[in-house]
Amino acid sequence: MKVGVVGLGLIGGSMAKAIHKKTEHTVVGWDMSETVRLSAKLLEAVDEFMIDGNPKDCDMVLIAVYPQATVDYVLKHAKDFKKGAVVVDCAGIKRLVCRGVQQAAEENGFLFVGAHPMAGIERSGFNFSSEKIFEGATMILTPYQGADIADVNKVCQFFKSVGFSRMQIATDAEHDQMIAYTSQLAHVVSSAYIKSELSPRFKGFSAGSFHDMTRVAKLNETMWTELFLENRDYLADEIDGLVERLQAYSKVIREGDADTLKAMLKDGKEKRLAVDVVKEFD
Amino acid sequence: MKVGVVGLGLIGGSMAKAIHKKTEHTVVGWDMSETVRLSAKLLEAVDEFMIDGNPKDCDMVLIAVYPQATVDYVLKHAKDFKKGAVVVDCAGIKRLVCRGVQQAAEENGFLFVGAHPMAGIERSGFNFSSEKIFEGATMILTPYQGADIADVNKVCQFFKSVGFSRMQIATDAEHDQMIAYTSQLAHVVSSAYIKSELSPRFKGFSAGSFHDMTRVAKLNETMWTELFLENRDYLADEIDGLVERLQAYSKVIREGDADTLKAMLKDGKEKRLAVDVVKEFD
Repeated sequence: MKVGVVGLGLIGGSMAKAIHKKTEHTVVGWDMSETVRLSAKLLEAVDEFMIDGNPKDCDMVLIAVYPQATVDYVLKHAKDFKKGAVVVDCAGIKRLVCRGVQQAAEENGFLFVGAHPMAGIERSGFNFSSEKIFEGATMILTPYQGADIADVNKVCQFFKSVGFSRMQIATDAEHDQMIAYTSQLAHVVSSAYIKSELSPRFKGFSAGSFHDMTRVAKLNETMWTELFLENRDYLADEIDGLVERLQAYSKVIREGDADTLKAMLKDGKEKRLAVDVVKEFD
Repeated sequence: MKVGVVGLGLIGGSMAKAIHKKTEHTVVGWDMSETVRLSAKLLEAVDEFMIDGNPKDCDMVLIAVYPQATVDYVLKHAKDFKKGAVVVDCAGIKRLVCRGVQQAAEENGFLFVGAHPMAGIERSGFNFSSEKIFEGATMILTPYQGADIADVNKVCQFFKSVGFSRMQIATDAEHDQMIAYTSQLAHVVSSAYIKSELSPRFKGFSAGSFHDMTRVAKLNETMWTELFLENRDYLADEIDGLVERLQAYSKVIREGDADTLKAMLKDGKEKRLAVDVVKEFD
């Protein structure tokens, strides 16, 4: 089939390369930047271009741009999509996107499935894209309620063919709530952690835990600002929940309450060990 | 020379193995547990035992037990140390230990140097000890003000000979403050992070950042309770500082203030990149 990839950054570029190298599909790509388009052609990530980003004739369209830009793209081209085409986005939040395009999909006869590849690195842009970043990764899919199971299965098979090893089906709200905790909160903590007045003096006093805590502070602030604000309800609740728990630690530590502190640490250890158990049976 | 190692857990066991394999020194060891002592002998981590843990005849004594137990050991054996012996501890907090034994060292003619090996894994006990855990690691030394530079240099050379690649000299207070931030706070955050009500549902929604954030929640709660409480002033200040910063993120996210949020994230990114620059010139 003919697969269109809109946005050839880290995720879109990697998708194009993976489809090109691992499947028989034809890849047509598009990016706002002419430099990126030429790079993608030179490196054979795409077979040809989607003229002005128009998705006509594509059997499947993968959209890998920021959330609001995804909605804008789908609405702008709502009448251009081939009837029955499968349109999938890759944005890190799903309510905004899935709800923003649902009516357009129904009215224009294309199938929309929300998706969020759980893959990424602390760098962005086509230059860092690679067909390998999806290997072993999970793809979260957020189809609409009532979606045809055969269609969703087709999307699953497609993503497995480009390297994903596991599919997770969720509602858009469930996705946004879980991602607020497992990913967005981690980025907020990392950004806040590095801002201690002591951080410039870390050298000689740091081990793995400091680097683990601060690694994802190296983020693309434009993209994450949009992701955070479009998920502000769930994310702010998670931040506030963590703040409350940290305040409880601070209190028992200041009070010197060894028994309570030890019980709190033991509880945390056990909850973390439970994560390992789940992973082991994976 | 004859080196005594008191406490054959992860750190003491690893020290004994490293000295035994990498130097010509004789290693005499001691642990409260007979099982551990026998394991250490069987695995040739030690040449012989310190009878009842008595440090007599040792030219150097490494103490690798909990902080208060370190103080208790030094005071109990204050008159047993060889005159001029070098006594070094390995505890994760330094004010309690260094101040607790200073007078005994001066009165009894042995040299005490506080030390904190920046090495460790999420497991504890002799069974996980290895002569390799110090390779490439930093050793923080907290000698007393006015200590003879030649003596401190001798300790540095010794630790380099067992695998450490870098020495950091600090006062006991400077150590405790920095460690509160770079290590203890990371453990508190990790323990608090995993306690969200959402954590049991992480599967399928997590990527590297969730695992990095929660890794060190798997801690030895008895040891860390002591470390936290004996450093409660610095640690509680760091927790409260992080809480304040997190509250600032929560506020701008709830308010939807994109410009401020983006500036905060950019600032965090730049502070984290500065850490990379320091590491690169290391």
